[in-house]
Amino acid sequence: MAAPVVRLPLPRFCQGFCFSRRVAKLRGHSTEAAAVLKERPALSGEASSDAEIATRKKTFSEVLAERKEQANRTVLINCPSKITEKKLLKYLSSHGNIKNHFFYETHGIYAVIEFSELDSIASLQDATGMPQFEDDCPIPFKSRIFTLTLKNPPSQASEPIHLHKQTTIPVGELVNKLCNADSVSAQLQILMEKYQLTEENTKLRFLACSLIQDIAGAYFPDCNVKPFGSSVNTFGKLGCDLDMFLDLDDTGKNSARRKTGPFNIEYQMKRVPSQRIATQRILSVIGEFIDNFGPGCVSVQKILNARCPLVKFSHQPSGFQCDLTANNRIAMRSTELLYIYGSLDPRVRALVFGVRCWARTHGITSSIPGPWITNFALTTMVLFFLQKRQPPIVPTLDHLKGLAEDKHIVEGYDCTFVSNLNKIKPTENTETLDVLLGEFFEYFGNFAFNKHSLNIRKGKEQNKPEASALHIQNPFEQSLNISKNVNATQLDRFVTLARESAWLLQQEGKGPSSSHSQPWGLAALLRTSGLSHAGKSTKRKRGPASERIKSLLDSLKFNANNGKRTFGTWVC
Amino acid sequence: MAAPVVRLPLPRFCQGFCFSRRVAKLRGHSTEAAAVLKERPALSGEASSDAEIATRKKTFSEVLAERKEQANRTVLINCPSKITEKKLLKYLSSHGNIKNHFFYETHGIYAVIEFSELDSIASLQDATGMPQFEDDCPIPFKSRIFTLTLKNPPSQASEPIHLHKQTTIPVGELVNKLCNADSVSAQLQILMEKYQLTEENTKLRFLACSLIQDIAGAYFPDCNVKPFGSSVNTFGKLGCDLDMFLDLDDTGKNSARRKTGPFNIEYQMKRVPSQRIATQRILSVIGEFIDNFGPGCVSVQKILNARCPLVKFSHQPSGFQCDLTANNRIAMRSTELLYIYGSLDPRVRALVFGVRCWARTHGITSSIPGPWITNFALTTMVLFFLQKRQPPIVPTLDHLKGLAEDKHIVEGYDCTFVSNLNKIKPTENTETLDVLLGEFFEYFGNFAFNKHSLNIRKGKEQNKPEASALHIQNPFEQSLNISKNVNATQLDRFVTLARESAWLLQQEGKGPSSSHSQPWGLAALLRTSGLSHAGKSTKRKRGPASERIKSLLDSLKFNANNGKRTFGTWVC
Repeated sequence: MAAPVVRLPLPRFCQGFCFSRRVAKLRGHSTEAAAVLKERPALSGEASSDAEIATRKKTFSEVLAERKEQANRTVLINCPSKITEKKLLKYLSSHGNIKNHFFYETHGIYAVIEFSELDSIASLQDATGMPQFEDDCPIPFKSRIFTLTLKNPPSQASEPIHLHKQTTIPVGELVNKLCNADSVSAQLQILMEKYQLTEENTKLRFLACSLIQDIAGAYFPDCNVKPFGSSVNTFGKLGCDLDMFLDLDDTGKNSARRKTGPFNIEYQMKRVPSQRIATQRILSVIGEFIDNFGPGCVSVQKILNARCPLVKFSHQPSGFQCDLTANNRIAMRSTELLYIYGSLDPRVRALVFGVRCWARTHGITSSIPGPWITNFALTTMVLFFLQKRQPPIVPTLDHLKGLAEDKHIVEGYDCTFVSNLNKIKPTENTETLDVLLGEFFEYFGNFAFNKHSLNIRKGKEQNKPEASALHIQNPFEQSLNISKNVNATQLDRFVTLARESAWLLQQEGKGPSSSHSQPWGLAALLRTSGLSHAGKSTKRKRGPASERIKSLLDSLKFNANNGKRTFGTWVC
Repeated sequence: MAAPVVRLPLPRFCQGFCFSRRVAKLRGHSTEAAAVLKERPALSGEASSDAEIATRKKTFSEVLAERKEQANRTVLINCPSKITEKKLLKYLSSHGNIKNHFFYETHGIYAVIEFSELDSIASLQDATGMPQFEDDCPIPFKSRIFTLTLKNPPSQASEPIHLHKQTTIPVGELVNKLCNADSVSAQLQILMEKYQLTEENTKLRFLACSLIQDIAGAYFPDCNVKPFGSSVNTFGKLGCDLDMFLDLDDTGKNSARRKTGPFNIEYQMKRVPSQRIATQRILSVIGEFIDNFGPGCVSVQKILNARCPLVKFSHQPSGFQCDLTANNRIAMRSTELLYIYGSLDPRVRALVFGVRCWARTHGITSSIPGPWITNFALTTMVLFFLQKRQPPIVPTLDHLKGLAEDKHIVEGYDCTFVSNLNKIKPTENTETLDVLLGEFFEYFGNFAFNKHSLNIRKGKEQNKPEASALHIQNPFEQSLNISKNVNATQLDRFVTLARESAWLLQQEGKGPSSSHSQPWGLAALLRTSGLSHAGKSTKRKRGPASERIKSLLDSLKFNANNGKRTFGTWVC
């Protein structure tokens, strides 16, 4: 029964270029990458073979550092629609060897060009002019985003360039593809392959962070802008928001403070009454900068009074909706935890993608904050379910903590868990995804939500400490409930739909219809008309428009009053 | 009669270090200084003797570039009061050779440390820690301002360090000193020496600009923050505001734009509808930065809707009140013009300092905007007077324009004049300052202000083109009147006081009283009780308090409504 397991690929996020090649390349361009290299678990002597390094699974920090270093060597070029790939590459090669490139379309056609050497960017910038507008005036901030124009329009039609898609296919199209699969396992894999972040999209996300770091780094040279949440937790879907974490922690560190002499010397700095105020001010000024000077940055909103202050903006050249936060370390740890779970066993991601797609189709999750179950809560439910299998498919968080070498305390919370994936013993469970999907729905269709709380730290249900409809313990801030926002109506809908889905999967059997034309398996679950949207067992039907609007308004009010985002919003 | 002329020193601003030494030192640290070196008038071959270079008078640009390069190698250190100079220097010398240093007191005791090499600053910064506050939190922006503390309080009293004064002496004290002089010429020289910017104060002004350039330069690497107005026009008084000009012009220039290949490549940049809006946005964001992160920068006010948008702030470590503007090139040219006039003949500055001190003592000029004569207007009147002497002591602006090699047009206005002081023939006029001061008061005591306008471009009075009480043609924007703000009352006061002062100087003779105890000459003119403050010949007396408050309020209203500052405010 191992077939579906073996067939599933590694998360795209961890793919890319080979570890051993990176080592040869690094040469200290990125201090962070260099630091990570030093810190990585000791390999067996200096002469570790390439094969050995290549087979070792990379830690989250290693992947971040590699991607970041790659992004630092990359530029973004807005191209005319009649561009010829060959000519463009020839032109740019005069500034250095191009290691990688691809095209995509957002507000215009863009080329992502990754040079082999950092110096090539300076060379390109030297050759770049200031824009000349007829009436307008440019704000002279020089970034790594360029606009290329043709001196002469081409006389003959050029060969069309391949544009990499940066969005998911419509559900209807997906359902059609799923109908042609051979099993539910295969369906889940197709869904994941169509929905997951591509190599190109991941590169673009790191590039966008790198461009924002250029801005923040002008004033805080040791700062680091890292993606977190769905962009890097292995569960990201094409088109999901890009969460950025402005890490100023290294700014405070001193590399080699001389202790000699009769004096202590410190920087004279502005002081504010709290870390929160410092964060608000820094985000505010960087937000002003992004708003006024950031090329292609529009709709900048500062939400500084939120529990975790943030700046939202749309980065048009990359096409991402970005949320920039600072001092959000617990979210960074949650991201790494999901990365570990997503990388441990290929069934985890496939099941999460399937369940999340199902939930979004039926309005169980939503893109706006409110009483809906969040992606993070849903993912945690899948993880909990997988911990409950016999034998378990993923270990408990306490088990991961036991494997860790170092303690990791963030803001007083124990966020310790092992980073080295190779230390975690693979599961002996060989259940197929066909089985797991059905069992997932059955498990939660019958779960005693009224009495029990889900706890992935222990891998078992516990008595609910409070009256919320759904209680899922925050894995790090353990006194918190990550699904406190969910109301009874939404939980009821989830339960009803889970039961119906379990029933549907059992009814239809787990194979395709003979003609492949009738939606079956996962495809049947994704038809919006296939399941009772109101949750027939509860007395409430999906309300009329006015009620739905009221619910929307309530949720907005909830958001505004609390000035908070639920924990999960940033992590998934 | 050449004695008083020869006795007067060169303006402090142009002193400092020797041109030939600078050449050896430069090594490309400052691109601007390097550019100036290239552009300076060709000396006689590469082997020009040091003596030849040293005797040549420096151009304004050369002085700015030298001072700037010096400032870039300089740091500011807040010291404990019990510091020992020797120990401090020993400690800092571990980071490199110290070329120059001095101490002063403002909000605490500060040391200005000029290293010989730029690298020393990086070395010092490497050894510098982040401040640790008990309750507060630092904003981690690392500048060149440091705080030094003693590890152990010294067991014995340390030798007191010499603190350079950064303010003028009180008028009473000045009057006493003037009484002991031998002639009015000597009195004017004493006044100038006590009031003019010191070498240390000038260094501190360039350092403050350099620190603000660190901030602006983070985003606009080719920008340049230059002092202008009284800080560098040779007429600055200790304690005067520091006007800063953020020059972004070089940002737009391309050094070596490659024209090969079928493409044009440009930076993608935000665009705004006008240069004015661009300036406003840039100043706004930099103002936010200064406000939130700039160490020791307080009371930041953005005045972006003024004719020339500006950011005002108080720079506590240097003790300066700063005005940061951008795109203010005409003011920069006016500054250079005054620099030339101030450097041509030593009598110019002595007379201007004397007249300005006299005017401020009697409330003819004021530190707040309103109907008062500005320092720039008053300086222009002195220059006009000196142009009218026979033979003239300073040439007309048209004469300076005739000597220029290149045209210099700013915003459509002809701002052409010679930069090379060595091309201007010295005057043959040998009148003493004793004569000139008296004649100045007599000249303007009898000037037909009702009919005539002053024009330093032509060096003669012209018919007034408009009804303003006082008309002084703007030397560059020639349709404007630099003293449009002055009302009839203020002009009358000036005229009356000028007449009384001329009379007083004639009455008392021009020598000291035998006992030196009775104020005489210039000292007599500076006694607030010595002259009729109301202007007896006019019917208006200096109004009662309520009227003065009304006048103050009117002037504030004037300022707010117009959202303008008079031209002169920035130049003097």
